[in-house]
Amino acid sequence: MKNFNEWVSSIAEAGRELIPGIGRQGKKRTLPNLCHELCTSKGEAMGTALADEVVKAYKALNADGRIAFYDMLYREFSADPDEILECAEAFKEKQDRATYTALSKAIESPRLTLFRSINMAPQGTATLIQMREHLLRQLKLHPEFSGIDEDLKHLLASWFNRGFLSLERISWQTPAHVLEKLIAYEAVHEMTGWDDLRRRLAEDRRCFAFFHPALEDEPLIFVQVALVKGMAGNIQELLARPVIESDDPKPKAKSNGSQGEHPQPDFDTAIFYSISNCQAGLKGISFGNFLIKQVVLELRNEFPQLKQFATLSPIPGFRRWLDAEIENPESTIITDENRKHLKLLDSPTWTDDPACCEILQPLLTRLCAHYLYHAKKQNGPLDPVARFHLGNGAEIARLNWLGDRSANGLNQSAGMLVNYAYVLKNVEKNHEAFVNEGRIAVSSEFQKLLK
Amino acid sequence: MKNFNEWVSSIAEAGRELIPGIGRQGKKRTLPNLCHELCTSKGEAMGTALADEVVKAYKALNADGRIAFYDMLYREFSADPDEILECAEAFKEKQDRATYTALSKAIESPRLTLFRSINMAPQGTATLIQMREHLLRQLKLHPEFSGIDEDLKHLLASWFNRGFLSLERISWQTPAHVLEKLIAYEAVHEMTGWDDLRRRLAEDRRCFAFFHPALEDEPLIFVQVALVKGMAGNIQELLARPVIESDDPKPKAKSNGSQGEHPQPDFDTAIFYSISNCQAGLKGISFGNFLIKQVVLELRNEFPQLKQFATLSPIPGFRRWLDAEIENPESTIITDENRKHLKLLDSPTWTDDPACCEILQPLLTRLCAHYLYHAKKQNGPLDPVARFHLGNGAEIARLNWLGDRSANGLNQSAGMLVNYAYVLKNVEKNHEAFVNEGRIAVSSEFQKLLK
Amino acid sequence: MKNFNEWVSSIAEAGRELIPGIGRQGKKRTLPNLCHELCTSKGEAMGTALADEVVKAYKALNADGRIAFYDMLYREFSADPDEILECAEAFKEKQDRATYTALSKAIESPRLTLFRSINMAPQGTATLIQMREHLLRQLKLHPEFSGIDEDLKHLLASWFNRGFLSLERISWQTPAHVLEKLIAYEAVHEMTGWDDLRRRLAEDRRCFAFFHPALEDEPLIFVQVALVKGMAGNIQELLARPVIESDDPKPKAKSNGSQGEHPQPDFDTAIFYSISNCQAGLKGISFGNFLIKQVVLELRNEFPQLKQFATLSPIPGFRRWLDAEIENPESTIITDENRKHLKLLDSPTWTDDPACCEILQPLLTRLCAHYLYHAKKQNGPLDPVARFHLGNGAEIARLNWLGDRSANGLNQSAGMLVNYAYVLKNVEKNHEAFVNEGRIAVSSEFQKLLK
Amino acid sequence: MKNFNEWVSSIAEAGRELIPGIGRQGKKRTLPNLCHELCTSKGEAMGTALADEVVKAYKALNADGRIAFYDMLYREFSADPDEILECAEAFKEKQDRATYTALSKAIESPRLTLFRSINMAPQGTATLIQMREHLLRQLKLHPEFSGIDEDLKHLLASWFNRGFLSLERISWQTPAHVLEKLIAYEAVHEMTGWDDLRRRLAEDRRCFAFFHPALEDEPLIFVQVALVKGMAGNIQELLARPVIESDDPKPKAKSNGSQGEHPQPDFDTAIFYSISNCQAGLKGISFGNFLIKQVVLELRNEFPQLKQFATLSPIPGFRRWLDAEIENPESTIITDENRKHLKLLDSPTWTDDPACCEILQPLLTRLCAHYLYHAKKQNGPLDPVARFHLGNGAEIARLNWLGDRSANGLNQSAGMLVNYAYVLKNVEKNHEAFVNEGRIAVSSEFQKLLK
Repeated sequence: MKNFNEWVSSIAEAGRELIPGIGRQGKKRTLPNLCHELCTSKGEAMGTALADEVVKAYKALNADGRIAFYDMLYREFSADPDEILECAEAFKEKQDRATYTALSKAIESPRLTLFRSINMAPQGTATLIQMREHLLRQLKLHPEFSGIDEDLKHLLASWFNRGFLSLERISWQTPAHVLEKLIAYEAVHEMTGWDDLRRRLAEDRRCFAFFHPALEDEPLIFVQVALVKGMAGNIQELLARPVIESDDPKPKAKSNGSQGEHPQPDFDTAIFYSISNCQAGLKGISFGNFLIKQVVLELRNEFPQLKQFATLSPIPGFRRWLDAEIENPESTIITDENRKHLKLLDSPTWTDDPACCEILQPLLTRLCAHYLYHAKKQNGPLDPVARFHLGNGAEIARLNWLGDRSANGLNQSAGMLVNYAYVLKNVEKNHEAFVNEGRIAVSSEFQKLLK
Repeated sequence: MKNFNEWVSSIAEAGRELIPGIGRQGKKRTLPNLCHELCTSKGEAMGTALADEVVKAYKALNADGRIAFYDMLYREFSADPDEILECAEAFKEKQDRATYTALSKAIESPRLTLFRSINMAPQGTATLIQMREHLLRQLKLHPEFSGIDEDLKHLLASWFNRGFLSLERISWQTPAHVLEKLIAYEAVHEMTGWDDLRRRLAEDRRCFAFFHPALEDEPLIFVQVALVKGMAGNIQELLARPVIESDDPKPKAKSNGSQGEHPQPDFDTAIFYSISNCQAGLKGISFGNFLIKQVVLELRNEFPQLKQFATLSPIPGFRRWLDAEIENPESTIITDENRKHLKLLDSPTWTDDPACCEILQPLLTRLCAHYLYHAKKQNGPLDPVARFHLGNGAEIARLNWLGDRSANGLNQSAGMLVNYAYVLKNVEKNHEAFVNEGRIAVSSEFQKLLK
Repeated sequence: MKNFNEWVSSIAEAGRELIPGIGRQGKKRTLPNLCHELCTSKGEAMGTALADEVVKAYKALNADGRIAFYDMLYREFSADPDEILECAEAFKEKQDRATYTALSKAIESPRLTLFRSINMAPQGTATLIQMREHLLRQLKLHPEFSGIDEDLKHLLASWFNRGFLSLERISWQTPAHVLEKLIAYEAVHEMTGWDDLRRRLAEDRRCFAFFHPALEDEPLIFVQVALVKGMAGNIQELLARPVIESDDPKPKAKSNGSQGEHPQPDFDTAIFYSISNCQAGLKGISFGNFLIKQVVLELRNEFPQLKQFATLSPIPGFRRWLDAEIENPESTIITDENRKHLKLLDSPTWTDDPACCEILQPLLTRLCAHYLYHAKKQNGPLDPVARFHLGNGAEIARLNWLGDRSANGLNQSAGMLVNYAYVLKNVEKNHEAFVNEGRIAVSSEFQKLLK
Repeated sequence: MKNFNEWVSSIAEAGRELIPGIGRQGKKRTLPNLCHELCTSKGEAMGTALADEVVKAYKALNADGRIAFYDMLYREFSADPDEILECAEAFKEKQDRATYTALSKAIESPRLTLFRSINMAPQGTATLIQMREHLLRQLKLHPEFSGIDEDLKHLLASWFNRGFLSLERISWQTPAHVLEKLIAYEAVHEMTGWDDLRRRLAEDRRCFAFFHPALEDEPLIFVQVALVKGMAGNIQELLARPVIESDDPKPKAKSNGSQGEHPQPDFDTAIFYSISNCQAGLKGISFGNFLIKQVVLELRNEFPQLKQFATLSPIPGFRRWLDAEIENPESTIITDENRKHLKLLDSPTWTDDPACCEILQPLLTRLCAHYLYHAKKQNGPLDPVARFHLGNGAEIARLNWLGDRSANGLNQSAGMLVNYAYVLKNVEKNHEAFVNEGRIAVSSEFQKLLK
C-alpha cells in the first residue's frame, strides 16, 4: 500500500500545474506569496500543492531567511486584535452558535490555519516540529515571535497528546535505522558507538521509547534501564559492567542451581539511568512522566522479582547554584570556611586526592541535599531533573558521592548523582502532593542529610 | 506490550484511591462534581482517574440523563464572555506573549479542557465521538447546545486530520471483527450477511477504508469497488454478478488464451458503488474526497489496464425535490401535463408497466438531469451525493434509468442512479473550478440531457 | 516481495520453452512422459517447469485417471528389488561411503525422487497432500498402491515434523479466510455458520491450531476449548451457553465485587470439546498430542486460576462394538437379559422415556466403561479417541449419561460422552506407562464402574 | 504466544524426572547411554527430555570428545548390512507393504532415527547443522565417518528444500541482531564494521538473503548487489564509491532535471559483488542458484531501467592451478618463456611496476581465460565460483585486470576478477546446456581471449 507521503506527493504534483508561477513552465513564487495563497485557497488539491511548496521553500531557507520568515509570520499572520475584540463583544451580547463560531474563527489566527495546512503536506508534521526547534533558538533575541511559538506549541500539544502515543520496547532486535537514532539522541551519558549501544541493549538492560503515528520510526523520548542487585550509585561502573551471557533471551531469577553453567543474575532493582528527549521542537510537551510509569508497569509484569524502581540521575544545576551561593555574600548556607574548602574544586585532579575528598564529601553532600530540597524556581525545585521526577511522584532516595567522574559530571555536579526512587504504593500520592502543594518526598536516609 | 488502555486503567485505579468519594470505601460522586474536579485538578494521576470516572458515568446515562449532562456543559462549562472580552481588550492594547496566552486560555472554554481531559481516559476518544453522535440528535430541539457541538467538532477535526489517517485494504483476509463492522456500517446497499460480504470481497472487487490510530480496528469510512467491463448502470445486476473463480488471488487482464480453463475478466472500469461513513460522531469532518483519490491511485497501480474510474451513485434528494416542484405552482420546469404523467409514479407497480415507463423515462431523465445540475443549496448542488463527488473533481457522466429497483431506490430517486466519472487528467481542475467558482463538470452525453 | 509461488511460476514459464511438446507451439505430452522426464532431467529450470506441468496434469485428472496414475507410479516408479539387493550385497561386503551412497540411492525409489521434484512446483506440497488423500481412499481396493502411500507418508512425516510447526491462537480477530476453514473442517460438533463460529470464539472460549510454513493460512489441526466452572458433561448445553459479555477482551477471575455491573465467570476448568484434523492427506502423522500439551501450557499461562484440564469427548466406536457383542453368542459381558434390555435402543425416542432410561443407564454405563478400558486393538484401546488421549497421558475421568443427544451422538455411543482429564503432574508418567506398558490411567470415580 | 523452544523445554523438564540417572536427584548418564535410550524410547515426553540432554551433552564436548562421539555413531548407530540384506532379499521375493516397510525401516539407519529425535529438542535443527560443520572438518582424517555425513546431509537436504525457504530483503531497516550476522558471515570482501555495513545497505545497493522457518533470524546465504552504470570491474572502487544522498528511499532513474539539487544515478546495471554462505553445516545443499534468479526478478520488478545483471567475482583457484602448471613440465599451455615471466609475480610490489604489468597483463589474461574455460574437475569447471555461476545459466563476460588489489585478491588470482553475466533470455538455455552437456557460455569479448 502506497504510504501517505507518496500519495500526497502525487496529488501535490497534479495540483502544482494549477498554481500560476510554480507550474513546470513558470518561475518560482516567493514564500510569502505561497503562504498567503495557502491560507485563502479553498481547493484541496491546490492546497496540498501549495503546502508542499511551502515545506520545500522553508527547508531551503538559511538562518537569516528563517528569521525573515518568522518576521513575516509575526507581521502578516498574527491574530487580528480588532476582529477578535469585535467578535468578543458580539459574543458577550449574545451567546449563540453564530457568535461562537465567529469568535472561534477570529481567534484561530491565520498562522494556525497556515500551520494546519502545512501539516497536510508530505513531511508536514516533521517540518512543523523542526520549525519550532529553529524558532525556540530565536525567542530570546526576538520575543515578538513568542506568539508563533504559542501557536505551534498549541497545535503540537493537541496532536501529541498521550492518547496517540505508543510505547515500544527498543532492543537489539530493533531495526538499525531506529537504533542509530538512539546513538544520536542520547543526551545524558553519551554513546560511543554500536558496541556501546549493544551493551546498553543486552539481556540485563531494557530500553523503551514513545512513538507517534505521524512520525514513523522517530522516537519522541526514550529511557534506558539497568537490572541490578541493590541500588546503583556509580554510572561508570554501571555502563562498564560486563554482559551476563546466557542462552536465554531474558534475565531470570536465580534458578535452582542445577544449571550451574549459566549463573543468572539475582537482580531486584530497575535503575533508570538515562532519559532523553529526542525532538527539541516538542519542548514543553511532556511525555516523560507517562513513559516512566508505563515502563515500571512493563518491567513489573516481565520481572515479578523486582523490588525497587529508581533512577540514577544527574544534578545538572548543582554547580551553577553552588557558584552563585559562593559569590553571594549573604548566603545563609555557606560559611567562609566552606568557601575556602570549596576552592579545592578548582584543582583539576581533586577527585584523586583523598585528603581533598575527605574534606569535600560531607560539605558537598550537605550542600547538594540542600540544593535539591530547598532551591526553588517559581513553584518547583530549581533543578530540572528533580522537578521532573518529583513531579512524577518519585522521592529523593540517596546521594552518591563521585557517582559520575566524567568531565561533564564533575562540571555539573562535582561528580554527584542522585537516586530518585519510584515507590509504587506512594507514587500517586507523592505526585498529587507535589503538584497541588509543592511537597517533596524524601527517604529517611536523605532526610538525615537535611538535618 | 500492555496496550494504552490497560495501562491507563491501572493508573486510574491507583488515582481513584485519592478522590474523596469514589475510592473503594466512599460513595459515588455526581457527574457534575466529577467534571468540575477534572477541570481543576492539577495532578495527572487523579486526573486520569477522574476522567475514567466521567467516561463511565457518561456511558451509564440514559437519554434524559444525557440531556441534563449537556445542559450542565452548556450552563457551567461554556466560555466566559466577560473574561474573553477583557482578554481581547488587553490583547488589543498590547500584543505580547502574556496577553496572547491569556486570550488563548480564555477562549479555550472549560468544555475544551474537560474534553481534552476525557480524551486521556481509556476509551476517551471513542467516548467523545459517541457523545457527539448523541448530541447531534438533540441540536434541533436544543439549539443552545450548538456551542458544545462546535467544541467537539473543533477537537475531533484537529485530531482526525488526514495526516493521521491510514488507508487499509479490506479483504477476505481481514480479521473477522473488522469485517463484521462493514456489515453493520454499510449505509448505501445493505449487506444481508457474511455470504453477501464475501461476494463483495471477491477477486473482482476491492474495498478500502480509512483508520485512525486512536480508534483501533474501527473503520472511519469505507468504499466498495467493482472491477467491470464498461460503465455499470444497474446496482442489482452488479451485486448479483457471479464471482469469477480463479486460482490466482488477483483478477488479471485477459491472458493469451492458452489457459482457456480459467477465463479472466477483461475489465477496464472501476465502479465505486458504495461509500459509507462509519462514525456518526465525526459528521462534517470530511475524509471521503481523500479516500477516493487515494483509492484511484491504488487501483491504477495494481491494475494498469483500468481505463475508467466512476461511481454508481444514488440520487437521494431527487424525489423530495421533485415532489416540491410538483407542488410548486410557479415551477418553471414542470408543466401541467408533466404533473399528470408524474401521477403514474403513485402506482406501486409502475416499473413493471412498459407503457408507463415509456412515458416516464424521457420525462424523469430530463428532470433528474435538471435537478443534479441546477438545483442548489447555499453555494452547491442540492443533492448531497452530487455535492460530494463534484466537490472531489468528478464529472456527471451518465444517468441510469431504473438502475436501482429496490424499494429504497424507487422511493428516493424513482429508481434512477447516476455515474460520476473521475477523469484523472481533469479531476484537480474540476475540483478547483467547483470549489472556487461553483462550476459543475459534465460529460457530453449528460450535457445533451440539459438541452 | 514476490512470494515463492509467483517466483517459481516465472522460472517454470521460462523452462517450459525448453520442453519438447509443452512449449507454446507444441502439443500436450502425456502425464507418464512428464513424470519420467522429471525424474531424469538434470537441469533445475526444466525440472521446475516439468514439475509444474505434472501438478497441473494431476489436478486435471478424474477419479479413473487418478487410479491409472497411481498404477503407473506402482508399475514404473517403484524401487528396483534387484538393484537394491545388489547394493545391499555390496554394502554388506564393504561399508564405505561409495557403497552407502549407492544403497541410499537405490532405496530412494524413483517415486521419492518424483515426489521431491513435485514438491518444488508451485503448490507442490499441497498437491502431494491432496494426492495422498485421494490415494488413501483406494488402498482397500488396491493394496498394491500401499508402497506409494509409504513413500508419501515418509516424506510428509519428515517435512511436517513438529520442529517446523507453529501454534497459533484462532480468535474473532483472525482473518476471515482462515476462519471459514474452521467451519469447513470442524469434524466433531458441526458448526452451523458464522454465528455459531463467533460463539465458539467468544470470551469464555479459546481455539488454537497448528500451522506449517509451507501451507500458509491452512490449519493442520485445531482444538476448541470452553472455560467453565467444574467439569462439563453435556455438549449441547456447552455449545448453547450464552456469551458472557464484558468490556474486557479476556475472561478474568472473580474481581473484588466493586464492579458488580460486569459479573465475571469464576471458571476453573478448561474443557477441550472438539479436536479436528484438517488435512486428510496427513493421516497417521501425529500432531494432536503436542497440540494439547502446548495448549494446556498456554492456558495455564493466561489463566493461573485454572484447576482442571479435561476433554468432553465422543466415544465413536462404542455402539459398533456393542452391536458386535450383542451378536456374539460367546460374549462374556452381555447376558441374555442385557440383550433384551438393549433392544430398547431401537426405539427412536428411547431417550424421552424415563422408564427406558432408568433401565439403560446403569447397563450402558457399565458396558461403556468396559469398552473404554478393556476393548483392545493391536496394542491399544479399540476406541480411537481413547487411544489418542490416553496416549497423550490423560486419564479416563468420568462417563456422562446422555451428554450428546444429537442424532450422531446417539448413533455412535448411545448419547454417552467421556471426560479425559489431563492431570498435569501425572500426564508424562501416564504417557510413558501407556506407551511402554499399555497401562490405562483412570480416576477413582471411573474405577468404580469397572467394579 | 510461547515459542516452540520454551514449550519443548518445559516438556523436556517434565520428562527429565522419569529418566533414571538424569533426574534432579541422579548422577549424569553418559552420552552413548542417552543416545541409545533416545533411539529405543517409545514415549514422546521422555524422548524430548533425552533429546534435550543429548543436545546439551554434545554442546559440552571438546574436539576430542566430538571425535569419540562420531566414532560411537559410526560403530554403534550405522545401518546393519545383514538386516538390510535380509530385507532386500525378502523384498525381492515379494513386493508388498510389509516387505517394503521393513526394508525402509532397515535402511533408515539408527543414526537417522537418532538425528530425527535430536531435531525435536530445543535448538535441535541448529545443533545438527553445527554437528555437521564439526564433522566435515574430520572427514579427511576419518573417512569412516562419511556415512554419518551422508545421513546428516540427507536429512538437512530434505528439510532445507527450497519450497520451505523464504527470500528476505536485508536493509538498514533490518533488526540489528540480523545485521551483525552479515558482518560475521561476509566471506568474500570482509566488512570492517557497522559503517562499512551501512554503506553496503545504502540507496544504491541491495542485499537479499534466504531464511528457513526452523532457523529464525539466521540467514542461510546472502547476496550483495551494487546498482551502477555500466559493468563494474574493480572491487575496491566499487566498495569505496561515495553514497548518493537523497530524500527518497529508493534510487531512481534520472528525473527530468527540474530537481537539479538531487542528481540521481542513471544506473543500468546490477552487480552481484558478494555471495556468502552462512552455514558451513549446510555445505553441498545448494541455495545459491535460486537466490540469484529470484533476486534478478526482484530487481527487475523494482527497477525496470536495469539492462544488465552481472557478478564481479573472484577466481579463487587460478593461482593454485597456475602454480601447478608452472611446475608441470608437460604443460601444453605454458612455455619456458612464460615461466620466466611468471617469476615476476614473486615480487611483492609487481603491481606497482608498469613494466612488470605490461609483460604480465596479456599473459595472465590468456592463462586465466584458459583456466576458466578449459580447466575441469570431474564434469565441471575446476574453479568453484565458475562452476556455480555457469551452472546457474550465466555466461563468462569479461576479465578484469587488477580488479582486486587486496592481499587476498593478489594471492588467489593475481588480482584478476571476472564478470559472469546473467543474460535473462539465455539463462535457462545456458543452464540446461551446462548441466546436460557441460557447455560453457561466453561473451564474444571473452571468446577472443580463448583465441
